[in-house]
Amino acid sequence: MMIGTIASHSALQILRGAKDEGFETLLISDRERRGFYERFKVADELIEIGNFSDILGEDIQERLIEKNVILIPHGSFVEYVGAKEILNLEVPIFGNKRVLEWESDRRKSFEWFERAKVKTPEEFRDPGRIDRRTIVKYGGAGGGRGYKLVKSEKEFLEKVGNFDSKRMFLQEYIIGTRFYPSFFYSPLTGENELLGMDIRYESNVDGLSRLPANNGSIEPSYVVTGNLPVVMRESLLPEVYTIADRLIETSRDLFPPGLTGPYCLEMVCTEDLNLYLFEISARIVAGTNVWVPAAPYAYFRHGEPMYMGRRIAREIKNAERENRIAEIMS
Amino acid sequence: MMIGTIASHSALQILRGAKDEGFETLLISDRERRGFYERFKVADELIEIGNFSDILGEDIQERLIEKNVILIPHGSFVEYVGAKEILNLEVPIFGNKRVLEWESDRRKSFEWFERAKVKTPEEFRDPGRIDRRTIVKYGGAGGGRGYKLVKSEKEFLEKVGNFDSKRMFLQEYIIGTRFYPSFFYSPLTGENELLGMDIRYESNVDGLSRLPANNGSIEPSYVVTGNLPVVMRESLLPEVYTIADRLIETSRDLFPPGLTGPYCLEMVCTEDLNLYLFEISARIVAGTNVWVPAAPYAYFRHGEPMYMGRRIAREIKNAERENRIAEIMS
Amino acid sequence: MMIGTIASHSALQILRGAKDEGFETLLISDRERRGFYERFKVADELIEIGNFSDILGEDIQERLIEKNVILIPHGSFVEYVGAKEILNLEVPIFGNKRVLEWESDRRKSFEWFERAKVKTPEEFRDPGRIDRRTIVKYGGAGGGRGYKLVKSEKEFLEKVGNFDSKRMFLQEYIIGTRFYPSFFYSPLTGENELLGMDIRYESNVDGLSRLPANNGSIEPSYVVTGNLPVVMRESLLPEVYTIADRLIETSRDLFPPGLTGPYCLEMVCTEDLNLYLFEISARIVAGTNVWVPAAPYAYFRHGEPMYMGRRIAREIKNAERENRIAEIMS
Repeated sequence: MMIGTIASHSALQILRGAKDEGFETLLISDRERRGFYERFKVADELIEIGNFSDILGEDIQERLIEKNVILIPHGSFVEYVGAKEILNLEVPIFGNKRVLEWESDRRKSFEWFERAKVKTPEEFRDPGRIDRRTIVKYGGAGGGRGYKLVKSEKEFLEKVGNFDSKRMFLQEYIIGTRFYPSFFYSPLTGENELLGMDIRYESNVDGLSRLPANNGSIEPSYVVTGNLPVVMRESLLPEVYTIADRLIETSRDLFPPGLTGPYCLEMVCTEDLNLYLFEISARIVAGTNVWVPAAPYAYFRHGEPMYMGRRIAREIKNAERENRIAEIMS
Repeated sequence: MMIGTIASHSALQILRGAKDEGFETLLISDRERRGFYERFKVADELIEIGNFSDILGEDIQERLIEKNVILIPHGSFVEYVGAKEILNLEVPIFGNKRVLEWESDRRKSFEWFERAKVKTPEEFRDPGRIDRRTIVKYGGAGGGRGYKLVKSEKEFLEKVGNFDSKRMFLQEYIIGTRFYPSFFYSPLTGENELLGMDIRYESNVDGLSRLPANNGSIEPSYVVTGNLPVVMRESLLPEVYTIADRLIETSRDLFPPGLTGPYCLEMVCTEDLNLYLFEISARIVAGTNVWVPAAPYAYFRHGEPMYMGRRIAREIKNAERENRIAEIMS
Repeated sequence: MMIGTIASHSALQILRGAKDEGFETLLISDRERRGFYERFKVADELIEIGNFSDILGEDIQERLIEKNVILIPHGSFVEYVGAKEILNLEVPIFGNKRVLEWESDRRKSFEWFERAKVKTPEEFRDPGRIDRRTIVKYGGAGGGRGYKLVKSEKEFLEKVGNFDSKRMFLQEYIIGTRFYPSFFYSPLTGENELLGMDIRYESNVDGLSRLPANNGSIEPSYVVTGNLPVVMRESLLPEVYTIADRLIETSRDLFPPGLTGPYCLEMVCTEDLNLYLFEISARIVAGTNVWVPAAPYAYFRHGEPMYMGRRIAREIKNAERENRIAEIMS
């Protein structure tokens, strides 16, 4: 088997992890990016395409199937190809591709969270109900682009304007420390493994804090530009695991066989040590890059350097060895 | 010899470090947490107890002594069992357990700092003396809970109320960058080793900075929720070492044989590059997790992946080999 | 060949990296610092000098040449010895020492950036032209000392006073997330390698953000006290590489054979994902310490633990093996 992905998001990590586990690797890239990726020497083969949705074409898929490729989805993969379109791919996809629909639609995610009885920030169904600090989010994996902080309907009207319930999501903004724990759920062993945690580094909000308080009032924006490593107080981890376990369990009913492989919980911890889940990414997140080649939690569990890209490849290797490859893909 | 600890704080790191050095490991856990710890496969054996102070019971201690266990104390160990009660334990404790009394009582810590001639923030003996930005701290290892920032007696009365000199500690709040360097002092070699540094990630204060300046005035709180990795300007390190050396030297008079094993200095660096010590933790701190499996300063010294949990186990191994186990425990 | 450097800045990393690659190491230190460096056991030999500019003396240089030492320059090396004086050294210097003049003079740096057609913040030639948030910087590697944030000529006059065009540099202050990507350009292979990224941790500005907005208006200062690890959104990396490549290319015309070895781009990323280069360090930066012993981007490329100090030594080893040592030094 060959491990492949498309040239963006966390492709460097995915392919390096594959090589660490002894796999041949394949990168699907457009002309513009291939030079960048070739510098890192992580791809044994490269297929150049015009744009990423070409991957849906029959000829490309045939080539991939011929080469016995398993594709690893990531955030840009979902953004460029589309969660719905991925369902129609015939080339094997690592994990359950049906989950991508549930994570990319905020209302579906929250249905899932409710079923799992996980504490979340309030959702306000329309701007008239806003009665506290609220963040206005948009659908899709736009990386925080356009998010606005408002405190009332009045401020919503001023800063955002018309409410579009299909595109916008009004979520209580909870003040606290943010944590983005990354997990890997193995359908082979039934183990739910915490590997590492990061914090998103967002522009301009993470630059604004360096201005003096009297320096005018600039509106914060929340565009993800990078990630910072973090670890969590150990006594909070059992609750993080409980939340993660419940999400896995409920996912089995919502979209059998449920969430498998890498995912990331997006959480905020209040001063009372309450953890709120405000989003989920049901595939590898770019923040796992902060812990290459060795994540602390992964090291506690494995006793060897381990990171998400490598953990994915290890799962494929284990599945091949046990002749259970069908269980880890879709 | 077997390495053991109780199930909280930095137990994952302590036991993984022990396994890295070839030791059998034992975890003492209550029923609630054992499932969490078992996921990481760091404990070869597990003793379940009702609550952590049960460790003071004779039966448990006998079992531990029989198994030839050396216990590694950590922050929660001290919090749950009590610095005074630990003195009565008969099972071997790594390091000098008398230090735990000196670090858990802020006034005793400051007596120690004064003897060592270390620069510290001012302490105000009563609220009437507050003449600058001051942080009101509480005794014990509560992880920053309830701390308040005040600038005057008036603000103290408004925010805190009555002054309780036994429970409260009024410390000048110095503005600057915070550093929490973690050291290991080896009584076997007399070497004082810097391993790594972190920054505490506190709720809600580290979330507040992401709000616009005009967003109302929310009181900051300082509850420790996690840790971030950091390195310090190399030209400041010699002074950090000088401070650490002086603390070790003076500790020998205050509580012979003095501070041994892991400890952490809690410092702030002003814009004039002056370093102030505002607290000490005289045992492993949870912030060392950010550098598992390899801390930069430890790597400079050892030339191999090294982190606090592993360094502790290495010391025990060296002591066993040299037949000097009595020198590293109490 | 023996690898040497002077006792400051990133000497620990440089010497440990040399040892990792099998080199003998030499440290040039004053009396005050040698004790600190000896703790880390990274120097096989040590030459004690009165002060760092003594390195310009003929006797020291002769000893170094006799020992077949190649010196690795770093920020303090440049600060203590002088970019101009380094040109007169006869002992081999790793990299092109002429670059040090170009990086230590801000106007020369900006001439270089303009030639490379790299986006930079505006420079204001005199205070009368300041029409937006502007940072007043000073020449040399002072680590941010004395920098001031102003918004108008009036504020400049209040906070800074007289304008000294030789010492001061007025640079538009762009709000966003900061990134300090560290690269290594190999003249042996022509490869331009991204190894890691950090963020500078500055006092007092990175402490100010933890004060409530109503807590008075303290002027921020920007003294570098340490560094934090960070990774960047992968889709921004191709542009970072384009900028790095252009700087390398243009450097060949400006100071042949151009920039070689380690360097660091100092960048800010706006909410529109525009990257601005505001400074360059054309030698190893201290921020590379956050990624010892393994930087993520270096790991993607090399598939083994790699960090800047080690990468430098690897280059020297490769040059020796290929008999091309003249190409990597000056």
